[in-house]
Amino acid sequence: MPEFDTLAIVGLGLIGSSIARGARQFGLARRIVAIDGDASVLERVRALGLADLATDDLGAGAAGADLVILCVPVGAVGAVAATLGPALKPGAIVSDVGSVKAAVVAAVAPHLPEGVHFVPAHPVAGTEYSGPDAGFSTLFSGRWCILTPAEDADAQATARVTRFWEGLRAIVETMTPEHHDLVLAITSHVPHLIAYNIVGTAADLEAVTQSEVIKFSAGGFRDFTRIAASDPTMWRDVFLTNKDAVLEMLGRFNEDLAALARAIRWGDGDALHDLFTRTRAIRRGIVAMGQETAEADFGRARPSEPERARSLEAPKPGAAQ
Amino acid sequence: MPEFDTLAIVGLGLIGSSIARGARQFGLARRIVAIDGDASVLERVRALGLADLATDDLGAGAAGADLVILCVPVGAVGAVAATLGPALKPGAIVSDVGSVKAAVVAAVAPHLPEGVHFVPAHPVAGTEYSGPDAGFSTLFSGRWCILTPAEDADAQATARVTRFWEGLRAIVETMTPEHHDLVLAITSHVPHLIAYNIVGTAADLEAVTQSEVIKFSAGGFRDFTRIAASDPTMWRDVFLTNKDAVLEMLGRFNEDLAALARAIRWGDGDALHDLFTRTRAIRRGIVAMGQETAEADFGRARPSEPERARSLEAPKPGAAQ
Repeated sequence: MPEFDTLAIVGLGLIGSSIARGARQFGLARRIVAIDGDASVLERVRALGLADLATDDLGAGAAGADLVILCVPVGAVGAVAATLGPALKPGAIVSDVGSVKAAVVAAVAPHLPEGVHFVPAHPVAGTEYSGPDAGFSTLFSGRWCILTPAEDADAQATARVTRFWEGLRAIVETMTPEHHDLVLAITSHVPHLIAYNIVGTAADLEAVTQSEVIKFSAGGFRDFTRIAASDPTMWRDVFLTNKDAVLEMLGRFNEDLAALARAIRWGDGDALHDLFTRTRAIRRGIVAMGQETAEADFGRARPSEPERARSLEAPKPGAAQ
Repeated sequence: MPEFDTLAIVGLGLIGSSIARGARQFGLARRIVAIDGDASVLERVRALGLADLATDDLGAGAAGADLVILCVPVGAVGAVAATLGPALKPGAIVSDVGSVKAAVVAAVAPHLPEGVHFVPAHPVAGTEYSGPDAGFSTLFSGRWCILTPAEDADAQATARVTRFWEGLRAIVETMTPEHHDLVLAITSHVPHLIAYNIVGTAADLEAVTQSEVIKFSAGGFRDFTRIAASDPTMWRDVFLTNKDAVLEMLGRFNEDLAALARAIRWGDGDALHDLFTRTRAIRRGIVAMGQETAEADFGRARPSEPERARSLEAPKPGAAQ
């Protein structure tokens, strides 16, 4: 028996379409309704067969749903909730996937009728690609999904959403919206901001051409361009709706960077070496927790295992001494 | 016929050991001498069979070499050159792999005797791993190697070093040491600095635990931890020896970041959206130039192609409408 009879997904981008694929593959809903205001997205949803019904009608699409997941940019959730709220049936659960939680709670909750449960969620997963073709069913596998239910939230609704995300192979954790926004400001929002920023800085240089920046990006820069290629609308909304936590974390980042610049200017090699040693431990923690591969250089131009083995053979036996 | 008879490599870390492996695999030297002051490194070099001779004696090791490549941190090249300089034979070529070039030229050139040619080089390639076990023969394949010969350098020596790097499957480009240092400051040095910095900032937070930072790193932070796990000594030396260019580029980065913070504080969504859209173009350029894979999310937890295909099948035919 699927956890939900009818699942409605609003917004079939990378995340929404991955949920649709996963819900079907892992049998989490009997029926899937895809709702999107963009006709070209609906066309792809139909071509890919991602849903049982694909519609641009928010009210009609959400009317019979047991679980409605809002997968639109966080700047748009309020307007979407206002439109579909009155159509929801009693006992329905509304959730979302926004990267910001306090602002989403404030925007959505007032529009939901009595008897409808709101369980805000944020799956911490993604790629730099957007749109219904970019999704895949295992996007959330082994990743964390953070739920931020209100203190007086319906425990059963929270439990059902928890089971849904576990069904998508995610690991569920619960915290307050405020703490979520602080944690994500440092682990996601500020990293994106400084990645966008340095790519912009590099593009504006007079003394170094854009072609040089691109050519020599393997020295470190390309790691930033990946996340600086993320969806502009989604990220604009994140920064506008998590302003306080982002500016707080950015302030700390800037203080630390000023100290580092000072160490460089005054030639304080020990201060640099100490920091550079300390940061290795965090990397090891991330690899150990399975949130990253330990393979050097990821999937980039790398020899296959047989090639590596061959490159290690060949030396004349006994020649080295 | 190999390009060089005897190749001496000083420092058998990630880069030095990759050169040794590549030179043997691609037949670029008849004989390889590995020189390293660390007994445990020499032991690994012998166990891996990376060289015909492995020694800690700089003078003796370099004495008969036709090409000597210095693969030590840039802070150490001067002392190494001072020791091995007098032992070099006339016509020998000295090169290096340092990430900084003007300071390396200043530190090395004065120690080389008349008749010895200096061709500074910087292969723009690497991983976050260190040591002789981390190298592999194709590390430089498809990557750029920048040569910065002096204006009055011996053209034949430069041509031979060019052929050597092309033999390692690198693409060779020539520029002045000063321009190199500016280009690398923005494409490599500042990215590393801000990656080290944000990982340090995250580690110091009181309100967010280190375990939370690690758990939720998939939101963007983990991309920074990879380069913040790079060798501390190498990077300390880079910042101390390319101080001016790094501080200049960092100043520009900070100005741009201040403008971005201001846009967030004042809710200027258009300014954010404009930048975030512009940065996508640079990413496309890097992917198009083959310096990065276009595959979303690299080698991380990703479905195999058959799994992806399966996740796209299954929908009941005609159900979507």
